[in-house]
Amino acid sequence: MLQNGIAKSVLNRLPLYLEYLIDLKEIEGYTGYVSATKIATDLELGEVQVRKDLAFVCKSGKPKLGYNLDALTERIKEYLGCNEPKKAIIVGLGKLGSALFGYEGFEKYGIHIVEGFDLENKEYEHIPIKKFNKENLKEFLKNESIDIGIICVPKNVAQEVCDILVEMNISAIWNFAPIRLKVPKNVLVQNENLAYSLSVISSIITNKQ
Amino acid sequence: MLQNGIAKSVLNRLPLYLEYLIDLKEIEGYTGYVSATKIATDLELGEVQVRKDLAFVCKSGKPKLGYNLDALTERIKEYLGCNEPKKAIIVGLGKLGSALFGYEGFEKYGIHIVEGFDLENKEYEHIPIKKFNKENLKEFLKNESIDIGIICVPKNVAQEVCDILVEMNISAIWNFAPIRLKVPKNVLVQNENLAYSLSVISSIITNKQ
Repeated sequence: MLQNGIAKSVLNRLPLYLEYLIDLKEIEGYTGYVSATKIATDLELGEVQVRKDLAFVCKSGKPKLGYNLDALTERIKEYLGCNEPKKAIIVGLGKLGSALFGYEGFEKYGIHIVEGFDLENKEYEHIPIKKFNKENLKEFLKNESIDIGIICVPKNVAQEVCDILVEMNISAIWNFAPIRLKVPKNVLVQNENLAYSLSVISSIITNKQ
Repeated sequence: MLQNGIAKSVLNRLPLYLEYLIDLKEIEGYTGYVSATKIATDLELGEVQVRKDLAFVCKSGKPKLGYNLDALTERIKEYLGCNEPKKAIIVGLGKLGSALFGYEGFEKYGIHIVEGFDLENKEYEHIPIKKFNKENLKEFLKNESIDIGIICVPKNVAQEVCDILVEMNISAIWNFAPIRLKVPKNVLVQNENLAYSLSVISSIITNKQ
């Protein structure tokens, strides 16, 4: 898939560069310029790949100096939309949903999980979670502008939840239920299945033996 | 990356086929044969892709009938190593580590998370979690045969944990810390960064606008 001419594989590496550049400044106290060679060595990537990847987000570095650290960081943040705050909700506050609800790592990317919904009456660190039912969720989405819906419900209710989100004009869904959701073409679905990832590792071990 | 001639993209889709075939039998009561056309339609994949993917794990289906449902399910399970039980441990029982520790979806793929380690004295649903320190972890790994190490600690200690796992001959690591671990060539590292996934969604929304 291409977004503005950028391959998804490149897009997937941008957060890695960002994390690295932030650490370089904040932890290692690096300032000024950083070369593609240094980035490539530290991240164990090919230098050509680094140059190509970064060319999508900024002009090439200065000869013999490299990229301006602050400018490059800022450009990647901009590209990743970190500077344009986005609101997300989670439906399904089981173990995984709760872990995501409490995870602070998303804020760095400008994403705020503002509300959680669950079938059961729950609270999360003393914050009451909204009761999930069709009316409640629709009512909430009518009054709040939400960018991303995170689905963490069991797979037998995932499509139903998805349909409500789509009906209420949520155009990006992060789906943790092990099911392929049916959505209109203009809705983006990013599927995440942790069991799949682990099974891929397992398969590689099995086939190595 | 290729494993036994199979592309990682194909490998990543095998759990999807497996989940689908199991549901087809258990939920929809389907028996006998299933055609590539039906699989492709239901999963919204191209028929050519389905045939190619499945060719990696089994002989082609019978003309006009398709694949034997049970045989195909079994072959994918075999390929994914579901029939060869594997043991995993988790180091770092924060929110995400705890969610993984309690997740039952891994068992289907033959993966049993047998122990958790944390820096703090914790328990998980009344099961005490082992205290993490270098000696404890090494002692445990000396006596138990563990296939997969799952790293859920903060990034400043992730490399240290990784080094202990490698030293104790763990050859597959599932890493949730936002850091590129340095490992010998024979060690497999699968990186998982949920913030990255979410930032990719965010970026796609930003660049669409």
